[in-house]
Amino acid sequence: MTHICFIVAMRAEAQPLIDHFALTPLGQPFAPLPMQAFAGSYNDQQITLVVNGTDSKGLDHIGCEAATLATQLAITTYRPHLIINAGTAGGFKAHGAEIGDIYLSHKHVVFHDRRVAIPGWDTMGQSYAPCIETNEIATKSGFKQGICTSGSSLDMTPYDYEQMAITGGEVKDMEAAAIAWVAQLHHTPFLAIKSITDIVDSGRPTAEEFNANLHQAATALQQACFLLIERQLLVTYCK
Amino acid sequence: MTHICFIVAMRAEAQPLIDHFALTPLGQPFAPLPMQAFAGSYNDQQITLVVNGTDSKGLDHIGCEAATLATQLAITTYRPHLIINAGTAGGFKAHGAEIGDIYLSHKHVVFHDRRVAIPGWDTMGQSYAPCIETNEIATKSGFKQGICTSGSSLDMTPYDYEQMAITGGEVKDMEAAAIAWVAQLHHTPFLAIKSITDIVDSGRPTAEEFNANLHQAATALQQACFLLIERQLLVTYCK
Repeated sequence: MTHICFIVAMRAEAQPLIDHFALTPLGQPFAPLPMQAFAGSYNDQQITLVVNGTDSKGLDHIGCEAATLATQLAITTYRPHLIINAGTAGGFKAHGAEIGDIYLSHKHVVFHDRRVAIPGWDTMGQSYAPCIETNEIATKSGFKQGICTSGSSLDMTPYDYEQMAITGGEVKDMEAAAIAWVAQLHHTPFLAIKSITDIVDSGRPTAEEFNANLHQAATALQQACFLLIERQLLVTYCK
Repeated sequence: MTHICFIVAMRAEAQPLIDHFALTPLGQPFAPLPMQAFAGSYNDQQITLVVNGTDSKGLDHIGCEAATLATQLAITTYRPHLIINAGTAGGFKAHGAEIGDIYLSHKHVVFHDRRVAIPGWDTMGQSYAPCIETNEIATKSGFKQGICTSGSSLDMTPYDYEQMAITGGEVKDMEAAAIAWVAQLHHTPFLAIKSITDIVDSGRPTAEEFNANLHQAATALQQACFLLIERQLLVTYCK
């Protein structure tokens, strides 16, 4: 049976998915690491979901290091055919993005905050880890496509903009590039699906927009992921 | 027997250590992951060394994601009593640093490029993962001490400086905070030992200084690590 594994940073992003697919909690299977896992199946597809878990203050771990660990554990423990990073992200009005839009990753995933001005390492810093071809899925689902770009900060500096101009990054998050890099090392196909919580070039503080729109974006994300599974749009990409 | 594991990003940084301790190559034990391991013993201490390994172009993986993976693999596979991140770093003339200086980590390790302006996540982004108390080692070895601060770029932006001012970061590298975070999750004691390749506030481009001084700094690093093992200065911190 096709096995799809969702990697989701925050529990608030994951809960609608856990509920909708009625996934069973597997607890904290990698303890003392905080990552939590959930499992189930739907429409002939085995589904695993891994979230980063929380720190000692109860806050979800976010960012590229936690995403790296979660992906490594998910791939080596559950051996899925496809890794999907489902989450929220920032969009750009310059690219026509609106709150609640769903984007599929396109071509490859890049980093916008790993600058190493030594030939070879400059490109390694940007990563360009591949994602699955999403043209057909985009046509069938109506979702947008964009080059996902990741960094370790919620905000964005002029240096990040400069990197995005170089790499073509269009959808800004804090995990996808790390997850795609680990998936690439394991030769596991990768897809990111991102729901827009904030418009980076709106002039409004990202943190404020993120908090205001997280629930709406998480619901849109759940509906989008459900559509991909319900219509079996990912099965041909699983290997 | 006390078991100490060195995590070293680049092979050029690690080779003098591998040679000096006559470590045996264990190959690429986590394949398809690129990390390589070496093992041996010296003066009643078991020594393991893990390097990040190279990409398809033969370039060493660098940065926080590779460091996260290497540390996770090292701890879960070899179960060392102490993780030492040995490597090169940038120093600050404002703190009196000179090329080839050896710094021991002090108090905790921080990130300078994970900005999340939401209460709670702001501190999580900075990390503050603990390192072992190094006052006695510093006195006995003559090495300097400083708060290590990590980021994913070789250069440094005004935003990074601002974070360093908040966290007190004094020695700048690209791995220590990620390694310390993973070690903390596993309750494994952590120490960083850093050899200065470049002076960040010198006005000279970091990449140029790094390339010019890498060999000298790697030799100084090897001598410093050898001193810690030769004199058994770390044994009381292993648990």
